[in-house]
Amino acid sequence: MASPEVEAKLAPLRAAVREYGDLVRQLKTEGAAKVDIDKAVGELKARKKILEAAEVSLVPKDATFDRVLLEDLLRRRFFYDQSFALYGGVSGLYDFGPMGCALKANLIQLWRKHFVLEEGMLEVGCSMLTPLPVLKASGHVDRFADLMVKDSLTGECFRADHLIKNLAEKLLKDEKTDVDLRNELTEMLARIDGFNKSDIKNVIDKYSFKSPSTGNPLLGPEEFNLMFKTSIGTKADSEAFLRPETAQGIFVNFKRLLEFNQGKLPFAAAQIGSAFRNEISPRQGLIRVREFDMCEIEHFVDPDDKRHPRFSRVSDQKIMLFSACNQLDGKPAQSFTVGDAVNQKIIANEMLGYYMAREQQFLVKVGIDPARLRFRQHLSNEMAHYARDCWDAEILTSYGWVECIGNADRACYDLQQHQKATGVKLTAERNLKEPKTVEIVKVVPNKAAIAENSAVISIDSKNFTITKDMVTVKHTTKKVHVEEIVPSVIEPSFGIGRIMYAVLEHAFRKRDGDEQRNFLALAPGIAPIKCSILPISSNAKFEPILEAVQEELKSHEISYKQDDSSGSIGRRYARTDEIGIPFGITVDFESELQPWTVTLRYALTLEQVRLQVSEVGQVVSQLCNGKICWNDVQNQYPKFE
Amino acid sequence: MASPEVEAKLAPLRAAVREYGDLVRQLKTEGAAKVDIDKAVGELKARKKILEAAEVSLVPKDATFDRVLLEDLLRRRFFYDQSFALYGGVSGLYDFGPMGCALKANLIQLWRKHFVLEEGMLEVGCSMLTPLPVLKASGHVDRFADLMVKDSLTGECFRADHLIKNLAEKLLKDEKTDVDLRNELTEMLARIDGFNKSDIKNVIDKYSFKSPSTGNPLLGPEEFNLMFKTSIGTKADSEAFLRPETAQGIFVNFKRLLEFNQGKLPFAAAQIGSAFRNEISPRQGLIRVREFDMCEIEHFVDPDDKRHPRFSRVSDQKIMLFSACNQLDGKPAQSFTVGDAVNQKIIANEMLGYYMAREQQFLVKVGIDPARLRFRQHLSNEMAHYARDCWDAEILTSYGWVECIGNADRACYDLQQHQKATGVKLTAERNLKEPKTVEIVKVVPNKAAIAENSAVISIDSKNFTITKDMVTVKHTTKKVHVEEIVPSVIEPSFGIGRIMYAVLEHAFRKRDGDEQRNFLALAPGIAPIKCSILPISSNAKFEPILEAVQEELKSHEISYKQDDSSGSIGRRYARTDEIGIPFGITVDFESELQPWTVTLRYALTLEQVRLQVSEVGQVVSQLCNGKICWNDVQNQYPKFE
Repeated sequence: MASPEVEAKLAPLRAAVREYGDLVRQLKTEGAAKVDIDKAVGELKARKKILEAAEVSLVPKDATFDRVLLEDLLRRRFFYDQSFALYGGVSGLYDFGPMGCALKANLIQLWRKHFVLEEGMLEVGCSMLTPLPVLKASGHVDRFADLMVKDSLTGECFRADHLIKNLAEKLLKDEKTDVDLRNELTEMLARIDGFNKSDIKNVIDKYSFKSPSTGNPLLGPEEFNLMFKTSIGTKADSEAFLRPETAQGIFVNFKRLLEFNQGKLPFAAAQIGSAFRNEISPRQGLIRVREFDMCEIEHFVDPDDKRHPRFSRVSDQKIMLFSACNQLDGKPAQSFTVGDAVNQKIIANEMLGYYMAREQQFLVKVGIDPARLRFRQHLSNEMAHYARDCWDAEILTSYGWVECIGNADRACYDLQQHQKATGVKLTAERNLKEPKTVEIVKVVPNKAAIAENSAVISIDSKNFTITKDMVTVKHTTKKVHVEEIVPSVIEPSFGIGRIMYAVLEHAFRKRDGDEQRNFLALAPGIAPIKCSILPISSNAKFEPILEAVQEELKSHEISYKQDDSSGSIGRRYARTDEIGIPFGITVDFESELQPWTVTLRYALTLEQVRLQVSEVGQVVSQLCNGKICWNDVQNQYPKFE
Repeated sequence: MASPEVEAKLAPLRAAVREYGDLVRQLKTEGAAKVDIDKAVGELKARKKILEAAEVSLVPKDATFDRVLLEDLLRRRFFYDQSFALYGGVSGLYDFGPMGCALKANLIQLWRKHFVLEEGMLEVGCSMLTPLPVLKASGHVDRFADLMVKDSLTGECFRADHLIKNLAEKLLKDEKTDVDLRNELTEMLARIDGFNKSDIKNVIDKYSFKSPSTGNPLLGPEEFNLMFKTSIGTKADSEAFLRPETAQGIFVNFKRLLEFNQGKLPFAAAQIGSAFRNEISPRQGLIRVREFDMCEIEHFVDPDDKRHPRFSRVSDQKIMLFSACNQLDGKPAQSFTVGDAVNQKIIANEMLGYYMAREQQFLVKVGIDPARLRFRQHLSNEMAHYARDCWDAEILTSYGWVECIGNADRACYDLQQHQKATGVKLTAERNLKEPKTVEIVKVVPNKAAIAENSAVISIDSKNFTITKDMVTVKHTTKKVHVEEIVPSVIEPSFGIGRIMYAVLEHAFRKRDGDEQRNFLALAPGIAPIKCSILPISSNAKFEPILEAVQEELKSHEISYKQDDSSGSIGRRYARTDEIGIPFGITVDFESELQPWTVTLRYALTLEQVRLQVSEVGQVVSQLCNGKICWNDVQNQYPKFE
């Protein structure tokens, strides 16, 4: 991945990771005590983090990227901004303006086409309000929590790991902090993600960390459940939450969906919708928010058959894999074909591999730079005990590698949990390879004899007495062709806000030789506005031509923005480039010759062609849905300069 | 509207309404006491209700419509069903299955095209979680409530008007109830919608109504706020609600939107999203739910200029208006052109009239029967004090006339409320017809003199003393070309679930001569699945043809469902008709002749044509987006029988 010079610098860090990767493997093989394994894993993670930080900092970056400039553009042109700013704002909540709203809608529409339509999925739309018992069964009520500490006098709360990070970083920046403490703090910070309650307590006590707002002592840490609580109806027992993910809505509808699919496995259900997490102290813009859009797929399969019927279509596709093994060895991510990765058991099964390949296709289509995309496998201790294999699609942004899609083989955990909680069987039938003969034991009552009695049983507080002669036990056999199974679930789960933010970062460019002109090179398919219309002057004779262009675009359902302000044409183009409008139509003095013509400009290359008004709708429409590309247009129409 | 026979039966009821309509008008003219007007209005409403019930029952109905059959179909084929049924269900919450989810998505997509794209609106997507101060300013914290009574021992709650209705209806059904009581109860029921707290209390006391669950006495009534309460973050003062409407998100973003529109009025903003109301006892399926989809438009205009630039495009369109005047007169709704209605001041302004016309176009396009659509004006006492004019689009269903879209001229109330609460000016600039000269008074300090002092003022606990010689008061004048105004707001607000339910009722049909075959005659544009693919037999030689058909449909982004089960072709068509698939492709033994052909069937008319596989994608796509109609297809391709 990196140059030999960079690799030379990384070599000792890679070796340091490998040392502890090997140790963890050895401890596990030896069946060492959990506390020893945990300790080694903590150190391993710390060393991995140092390696990753070095990797990211050493890889040559797009030196021109400046997050402040991008954020300024996104706020100024109202892609999105903090919610309720008029009332002082609420952190972790964002409102999407006309540009962000259209970008998100296009992203979701493309997702629906790429997955729901092309893969024939069953899309559902379930309630966000979710009663307590459902989330108790799913494990969220008991385990969906972060550690929090509290100001002992004011009651103000802080997310424990964030508080420690901030205070430790403050100490590190302080010149008076000596070398020993500096080293100690650095090491502690690298380990913090694995800290439990008592680790947190120890650190706070050891460094006498206090409330950053008041200087008061801190209480805790205690667990803070991240779900928003409310109640439905007026009864006292109607406790409910806003769903923290969309998946549970699919699980509780499993039986209806199986029936919709005429009882057959496998099938995939999908849901696009909002979910909510009451983050204690959200930051990082769209990366960590309290209300967000997700697209989730639950693919229900036979646990013993995780093949995918269309796997052959993707088996030659190359993807970048950062396997658990490579992570333990301190090695970088490696490129594989999906077919090889499944054959070599790096990816556990075809189903997971198929989705990872399709996800990469989707991400590249919406504008993610494939060189900044990798799939990272979870280490075994990162996964829930029931999960079989997990791979996160991670995208490199200015925040580092950000998890944007999670892929988990969750086995049959979720359906089993809801089955346990409700007593309703959540199974499907599987055809047996060969019919099986099963023994059936049936107790047949001898109704005549039941009138008399000798042994007493009680039903509904009444006593009945049953003797041997009252029943006959019959043994018979039966040939069965099917057996019941609880399906396994493969779950790809997309964070739309994170993907959208990564798309914006990867699309943010500067024009060569013009530092002041930033623009967004958005893929035409997701651009909020597809086309601008710019009259070269405000001359009234352009009016009918402009109207004809508008009607032409409307009839092809193309969103457009007309800018007839008085700025120069270059200045007006700069304004449209800034919001990622890929195509621009100019009406100029040549336009009025019969038949009416306009120029069409492609923002990415600044090239222009001339074509008839009556053609422009069709051409822009095909450019946006990918049926033709700009080269085709250039070949067909005369260049305009 | 109705036949002479029906009108003869309705005449006395119309006269009864008119009597009280006239009385209300008279009392208002005379400036009578509020209590007297309220009493008359109560009686007027009761009489209107009796008239409306008679109208609905006397108009010849589609005798074949059976709600139980429709509901069975919608549940069985998973359009939607109660949420969390696996856990016993939660009333007022619904999950949308693959059919309902796609139907809703198509409805919303068409809405976006019809309004956002064609009218050039600014679409936003705002947070659902809303902090208390915002909803305090909007009036929801104080006034968004229903009256509720409580079981004095168990604490169980009931919506007061529902409880009274149920208990009174029970008494009415009881044969032992005598005629006097019967009349008294009927009259009370007709008036119940206008009941206040003490009216409710009086009724409960008078008839000794008790808890229907336990027979215990009832406490209350008290107000129950319909918003779902939660809190954001960990602080005690972070009380928040789930938004009860999407409108406030637009109002709090007014300044950003105005800036996006380069400071110019008028402009329209739109939002599509979920809202939540904690109904005390929701019933009536999708008509009254706790979590629902809305599409709202806020059109910001100059309060003195509510013209619409495209009004001439709709002015000849006929719409059915049930004006306040006709309601007071006991007259039925009347057909007008929109232009006449605005000229005659029946509709207050062009902006409202334009939207009503566009709404009718939208509703008819998605499948609402125009004969079951009317616009009902609010009586002045139904409107909030600040509203200027309100018209509900009402659709006739088996639940009676259901309000599906509200249109309100809300004046500048909302912006003013948020301005008051935050101290931030929410104004726009309006060009003055003529520049105005304003006087400017400026106090200029005489800095040299300020060193000495005589009169004392205190700033930040420090004392300063100001004398006359220290300041000069200057009077100047300035020419201004603009003035600041708080814009008025026209608000069309769509309930998507209600529209969707009405569409399903209006589309539900029985095949003539086949009572068992129900089907949904959905408009192709909103049908969840556009096309079925049915091989006439499971012969393997059809495989390549079927695959070619699938690829053809996918390449035109057409959703399809292949049914290769073993049922007869007629039985399989019945299954596809039931879920409203408008078009069906059959692959038969003639298909394999070169070039491959298929038959295309239109579910509504049962007619079929034969065409090439390579043409079918384009044809179905154009049928669905309305570019061609079935007649065009019949003219172009040979009929198949």
